[in-house]
Amino acid sequence: MNRNEKVKVDAGGDRWIRRLEIALDPPRLGENTADMDRLFRGIRKALGVRDLSAGLSLIRRIPRILRETKYRVEVLLCEEETGSWRLMDVGPSGRKKTLYGLAVDLGTSTVVVRLVDLESGEARDEVSFLNPQTEIGLDILTRIHYAGRVGGLNRLQDLVVTTLNKEISLLARKHTFAREEIACIVVAGNTTMSHLLLGLDPYWICREPYIPAVNSPPMLRAADVGIRLHPEARILVFPNVGSYFGGDLIAGILASGMTENEELSILVDVGTNAEIAIGTKDWIVACAGAAGPALEGGVADMGMMAGPGAIDSVRIHASGEIAVRTIQNKPPVGICGSGLIDLIAQLYLTGMIDVRGRFVPEKCGARLRETDDGMQSLLIVPSNASGSGQDLVLSQTDIDGLLRSKAAMYTILTTVTRLINVSMEDFRSFYISGTFGSYIDPRSAIAIGMVPDLPLERYKPLGNTSLAGAMEVLLSRNAREEIQTIRSTITYIELNVNQEFMNLFSAARFIPHTDRSLFPSVKG
Amino acid sequence: MNRNEKVKVDAGGDRWIRRLEIALDPPRLGENTADMDRLFRGIRKALGVRDLSAGLSLIRRIPRILRETKYRVEVLLCEEETGSWRLMDVGPSGRKKTLYGLAVDLGTSTVVVRLVDLESGEARDEVSFLNPQTEIGLDILTRIHYAGRVGGLNRLQDLVVTTLNKEISLLARKHTFAREEIACIVVAGNTTMSHLLLGLDPYWICREPYIPAVNSPPMLRAADVGIRLHPEARILVFPNVGSYFGGDLIAGILASGMTENEELSILVDVGTNAEIAIGTKDWIVACAGAAGPALEGGVADMGMMAGPGAIDSVRIHASGEIAVRTIQNKPPVGICGSGLIDLIAQLYLTGMIDVRGRFVPEKCGARLRETDDGMQSLLIVPSNASGSGQDLVLSQTDIDGLLRSKAAMYTILTTVTRLINVSMEDFRSFYISGTFGSYIDPRSAIAIGMVPDLPLERYKPLGNTSLAGAMEVLLSRNAREEIQTIRSTITYIELNVNQEFMNLFSAARFIPHTDRSLFPSVKG
Repeated sequence: MNRNEKVKVDAGGDRWIRRLEIALDPPRLGENTADMDRLFRGIRKALGVRDLSAGLSLIRRIPRILRETKYRVEVLLCEEETGSWRLMDVGPSGRKKTLYGLAVDLGTSTVVVRLVDLESGEARDEVSFLNPQTEIGLDILTRIHYAGRVGGLNRLQDLVVTTLNKEISLLARKHTFAREEIACIVVAGNTTMSHLLLGLDPYWICREPYIPAVNSPPMLRAADVGIRLHPEARILVFPNVGSYFGGDLIAGILASGMTENEELSILVDVGTNAEIAIGTKDWIVACAGAAGPALEGGVADMGMMAGPGAIDSVRIHASGEIAVRTIQNKPPVGICGSGLIDLIAQLYLTGMIDVRGRFVPEKCGARLRETDDGMQSLLIVPSNASGSGQDLVLSQTDIDGLLRSKAAMYTILTTVTRLINVSMEDFRSFYISGTFGSYIDPRSAIAIGMVPDLPLERYKPLGNTSLAGAMEVLLSRNAREEIQTIRSTITYIELNVNQEFMNLFSAARFIPHTDRSLFPSVKG
Repeated sequence: MNRNEKVKVDAGGDRWIRRLEIALDPPRLGENTADMDRLFRGIRKALGVRDLSAGLSLIRRIPRILRETKYRVEVLLCEEETGSWRLMDVGPSGRKKTLYGLAVDLGTSTVVVRLVDLESGEARDEVSFLNPQTEIGLDILTRIHYAGRVGGLNRLQDLVVTTLNKEISLLARKHTFAREEIACIVVAGNTTMSHLLLGLDPYWICREPYIPAVNSPPMLRAADVGIRLHPEARILVFPNVGSYFGGDLIAGILASGMTENEELSILVDVGTNAEIAIGTKDWIVACAGAAGPALEGGVADMGMMAGPGAIDSVRIHASGEIAVRTIQNKPPVGICGSGLIDLIAQLYLTGMIDVRGRFVPEKCGARLRETDDGMQSLLIVPSNASGSGQDLVLSQTDIDGLLRSKAAMYTILTTVTRLINVSMEDFRSFYISGTFGSYIDPRSAIAIGMVPDLPLERYKPLGNTSLAGAMEVLLSRNAREEIQTIRSTITYIELNVNQEFMNLFSAARFIPHTDRSLFPSVKG
């Protein structure tokens, strides 16, 4: 009876949000299939699927729409689970509007929202903004404690949802579309940020034995979380492996492509925590350990987060001149993590600091100062060249902080590779994720002994892999399945900070290391 | 890791609403599966299923519940589609409360609600009440037209939902339980009543080519329809075959068991419409045709719906005395359909009316009266014996009305059996559904030629099959699947009221028929 129904299938075979044009045979005496069932039959034929559902409010609208459009409609569909499709909308065909989705990196500090054309798969815009929960507390623990207060969890959720809604409104206005044209939002964030977005109590995340409320959040309606998009728009929040290995890292593993590699590779997310995944297409081992805030430029006197005027690259010329590059070429006001790694590496390579990270007065010359309490510091940018009107100086404390952080990173790498019996030399790819990570010069990171002395071409900065992974999932059913596979494949290792760890840590505090043979390329 | 998790499986293997007690291993370091995922793992193991989901508000409550109950919980589950389960609730185990469901016959005139213990499968109570939409209009068409007015559909839906809620409240109070302990409601009704309950526009049901909005309504949350039960309670509304063959009849086919019969059987729902299904376990043919309101006792001067004081059975003794039985043995105030069939049959068998249904004066004697306009009528109950203080009389018009109705019924049976090339004699079972149908004396129905002259034991009055079918589905996953199978198996035949039909109809207006050989058992 329906052999003449024509269906135009779009090209997005791997998409899980799809828009199809469907032309149905109008009903007649002797072929009296009901409106919804007629439409479902057409969609099933177009998609080759059996499992299809719709909500009551949409079903109520179908009879009128079918007659108004003379049975030629455009349907919006979401594959909620493999093979199980949800009818999200029905309207007149040929509207030719863009169908949007959002990929979100929900960071503890920074939230990045990317606007994506779900059909072409292209990014249309991107905005980043401070996670408004920072007004409650900069770090995760403060927010978990705040969530335990009366109304605290609601307030934390409301903060992030309200700001997301506002930023989405601005994007929609800028690109002159209605927020209802956004059909989906995919969010990658650490386990606590994901819980706070969903309004899930994070109480047990930071308490032994460290149990999240959810590992694999179900796909929900964005409206259930308070995010205002298409009324049937879906929200997918990345799964996590546990309290300390979140969806942001699963997104990173996905974006790196390391699970497709035959050869061994490693993904490192450099930050306050060093989060590490090592593996091949057959296995993944992950761990996380405290690396300290120095790597993020958050501790040194002149340290700052990456931003305009932050020194992000340093070269010391033979003349002793310290040449700095700043973000947006603004007059320097501080130094960010990558700049600090560069600076320490250059100081060591020019002999201005020794293997212990101590200033060498005869090399530092007049730049070296000593304060009343006997603390030495080195003038990097004089006040007349700085953007703040203050001298920018590097103190011994700053150096010690960075060396502790880099030692922690290298010790974690050493410990986990020993545990799983692989050699760091076997890493064919060393992926560095995180916006911060993309600015690190691997030569400098090797020079200070933060990362192993591998050929430079193996170092692959990936930028914001949390966002990249979210976008992949937004556009691909296979990627969406892959993150579940990754989640269940990962073996998470708890690092014991025992005596052996502390011994390794002590050795790694030197530049580049007490065992120079590990860093043959570094000429001190 | 979870090999010690103990699970107590209940006995309700065929139930699709189930309550299970589950004891989970508490989490520990090294086994840090999240709360929801841990619970899901336990349930999956208990049910042996993979596909399990839960809503956000329930997920938010899981961490606290697991800890408060020390990981021994009772879960309430609904199998939304085969193999796909929904977690409806989690609470402390061992509460030992009854878990209720509702089976509803949503009639155009009368609504019947049966309270069912979902675990034992036993009916606990039953209430019936007037469909409050009768205040808008007694018949379906009036309501469809009313639904087209501004706010009309909402009002019709609100009427039935409000009354259902009120009646459910009364049931809950009477049996001292909370309405939140009702987990499910299954509703069988004709296509229009089902649409009005769901708030679906019935506009096209009564307009060529007679297209319902929905054939197979999805399972919904009862709350989506406005019915207040457990917050996650489901509502299942029976599917329909089309505008004129609704869920009530599919429920009837299910309840009759005719789809399990090797031999031919027929199900007849006797009412204003004669709705018929004929088939075996391999096929079903269905049709519906107007039989007229006389069969329901709604037309004759003394006709009434079944109720206290309605004559439902009549015998005429050799002495000429007319003995009547009334519902609840109240003084007679009118006659209902089954009483009218009995009365006409007795009048014919005693010779008081002839084969054309005309009064035979010499047999009727003093009971026969003639009004001024020449209309003859027969005194059945004199005023001094009636409950109304009025004579109860049967007019020639009343007889003609019933004979038209019985002729329509027999003609429909003749037409459809000819169309599908079976003989009425081959019906091994002749199921009569409907409360009204259960009161019909098959001997009388045969005597007037309304139904074929089969051995009496083949006639099987089934009572309210709409309610019985709803209850079967409420309690059985197989029954729930079966109604979809029935729906898709049915071949619906439109009866053409053509010249041949009219010829057959004319022949069938005689008592029992012009062709006496069709009714050998009837001695006129």
